[in-house]
Amino acid sequence: MNAIVINTGTELLLGHVLNTHLQFIAREIFPLGFRVARQLTVPDGVAIQEALSEAFCSAELVFVTGGLGPTSDDITRDATAELLRLPLQRDATVISAITARLTARGFPITEAVLRQAEVPEGAVVLPNANGTAPGLYLPSAENRPHVFLLPGPPRELHPMFRESVAPILQSIRPAQRLEARTFTLACVGESVVEAAVGEQIQSLGEVELGYCARAGEVDIRVLGGRAVLDQAEALIKRAFPDAVFTSSGESLEAAVVRLLTERAQTLATAESCTGGYLAHRVTNVPGSSAVFLAGHITYANEAKQRELNVASSLFEPHGAVSEPVARAMAEGARRKAHADYALATTGIAGPAGGSGEKPVGTVFIALACRTGETIVEKSRFLTDRETFKQMTTQAALEMLRRRIIATLSPQ
Amino acid sequence: MNAIVINTGTELLLGHVLNTHLQFIAREIFPLGFRVARQLTVPDGVAIQEALSEAFCSAELVFVTGGLGPTSDDITRDATAELLRLPLQRDATVISAITARLTARGFPITEAVLRQAEVPEGAVVLPNANGTAPGLYLPSAENRPHVFLLPGPPRELHPMFRESVAPILQSIRPAQRLEARTFTLACVGESVVEAAVGEQIQSLGEVELGYCARAGEVDIRVLGGRAVLDQAEALIKRAFPDAVFTSSGESLEAAVVRLLTERAQTLATAESCTGGYLAHRVTNVPGSSAVFLAGHITYANEAKQRELNVASSLFEPHGAVSEPVARAMAEGARRKAHADYALATTGIAGPAGGSGEKPVGTVFIALACRTGETIVEKSRFLTDRETFKQMTTQAALEMLRRRIIATLSPQ
Repeated sequence: MNAIVINTGTELLLGHVLNTHLQFIAREIFPLGFRVARQLTVPDGVAIQEALSEAFCSAELVFVTGGLGPTSDDITRDATAELLRLPLQRDATVISAITARLTARGFPITEAVLRQAEVPEGAVVLPNANGTAPGLYLPSAENRPHVFLLPGPPRELHPMFRESVAPILQSIRPAQRLEARTFTLACVGESVVEAAVGEQIQSLGEVELGYCARAGEVDIRVLGGRAVLDQAEALIKRAFPDAVFTSSGESLEAAVVRLLTERAQTLATAESCTGGYLAHRVTNVPGSSAVFLAGHITYANEAKQRELNVASSLFEPHGAVSEPVARAMAEGARRKAHADYALATTGIAGPAGGSGEKPVGTVFIALACRTGETIVEKSRFLTDRETFKQMTTQAALEMLRRRIIATLSPQ
Repeated sequence: MNAIVINTGTELLLGHVLNTHLQFIAREIFPLGFRVARQLTVPDGVAIQEALSEAFCSAELVFVTGGLGPTSDDITRDATAELLRLPLQRDATVISAITARLTARGFPITEAVLRQAEVPEGAVVLPNANGTAPGLYLPSAENRPHVFLLPGPPRELHPMFRESVAPILQSIRPAQRLEARTFTLACVGESVVEAAVGEQIQSLGEVELGYCARAGEVDIRVLGGRAVLDQAEALIKRAFPDAVFTSSGESLEAAVVRLLTERAQTLATAESCTGGYLAHRVTNVPGSSAVFLAGHITYANEAKQRELNVASSLFEPHGAVSEPVARAMAEGARRKAHADYALATTGIAGPAGGSGEKPVGTVFIALACRTGETIVEKSRFLTDRETFKQMTTQAALEMLRRRIIATLSPQ
């Protein structure tokens, strides 16, 4: 079943905002048996109507993003209703949801805001947990394909898609379909993965293989029948017995929090170069407050001494970016919080601050354990500042994850 | 002059590769007086011909990316030539360039590879410094707009665009050009902004107005002639004398770091519910190490007492999520680091942990200043965990930014 994706938004066509909707929607619908046949981006305003009318003639499934908000250039809902000759009516449930949301935030309930409660006849409302404008689903009928009108902001679109759109797609999906499995590996390069398993998986027969690399992790995506996927899974797990941390899309930080929770163990952090990003990732995981005790961000040497009891005698011979300082930071943070583990990072994120001996990108990551053992790894991530933080925290979390799974299981 | 961008590539429609071409091209052509009116992505194969034929009828300028390579699904060049009834001829200069490139790398010169040297009659060859397939420019004629056929890989496209495409666009660009200005406001809702300035700006005359909302901030984008933009800018600054923190795309955290740096002032943080994200945002800014002294992530009450000297007597009557605890956290962090300012956050990010009196989303943000004054604001951000962190840190940074600009300027 072929889908068309229409992204509305002048900001996309001006290049002010990068359009990530196609990639998101394509990846979400593929495992359900759908593919995007065409995608187009149009500006806010009348161009939307033209694009919709083309799509309604040619596709079986249409996803429209954006143009559902309260301002005058948000015309997706009106344009769709007009084109399909469907009357719009204000929906009482949507009005209550909008009113509750805005009242809680102290915003006024204006006429403009209530336009977002208008629903075309026959449409199913898709609740928006993260914004005021709901999504709308119009089931296919004589003069139209299945149509989804969805919000533009990714933080509204993504949860709505997973919670409300996917179940509808499940119910209308074609009978025959392939299964997809994705295995995510931490701290292994894409080309290493391909060299290790690529040819072997391809030779299994009817199988489609893809890779997707992000900073510090890579997905192996395999599509095919169940028997072939089982064989591919066995191959991947044999080649990488430790590195696969999820085959269900769980993030590395969620995997670490889950492992700690299962073992009733606790974590503290001491960050220099990652500046709070390590703690941020851990505390993004719901329930992390049960395992995360305390975090320190110690940029200045003085803060490392004061907060983490790093001996001042270490700075002079070794420098703040060194194995002994990383070790002392982790041990100081662990002892202070009485935690089972502490992770510490100290490095040179750049763009400035490098030297001949310690160039930009150099980082020491330390893991202190309740057993008294402390492991320190030296790495170099030569990249921009934010990717440096991503790679470093990825390496730190993976160091902890491997340590936990290497010890005895909780049972 | 309106442009259409056509991106070809099945990998884009499967979501395996993120399509960054629209953003790149839109940003490159805008300063030259061109805008993208529509963008579409089509798979490799026959769909290209259909997309080209639509675009040739409606646009004055067409950019096509991808489909110029040596494999059988690379049909952009053939499809274009056929559609415009232009004979293809192998170009001797291109043959030499391809031969030299492949020979240097030890690759064989095959018939498939030499297809890339085919040039439609009347086309200008755009050399490819980073790949084998050259770009092609077809000047506008009776039956066609200006057409650029360009390579898909960004590392080939970007240099070719800047070196060969931009100079051609310079020579064909329209005499009159629009200017764009974007004003970013923190902690103000999109509908509030529109209600305050929307109609007034529209009534200035020849002007295009758009909004783009993100968590905790909104862009007002105005396009028009210089005189109108000056008037619009004055209107916006009168309606929101404090909230506009940038008109150059600077992030809120970068604005805060810049203001602190200009004043040689310093910052510390004490985070409960934001779990390190506040420090992460500040330390994402290059040069932040000069102003950011130390950060604390104190989830547990015990950590708040130990790290920030929050009196244990505060927890019992008020709870950890309270005005007095937020105040004590900020003051403790500021004193400990000897900083000019300290920001503290304590709240309930959810999904669990709320109560009748303090529902999920409740947050107290405190700013302690060297003057001895401490400001505390109570808010509620009812959203997912990550957006809650975004909104809370946005409110905290904005609180600090307004405090800094309210004091005397550094000169």
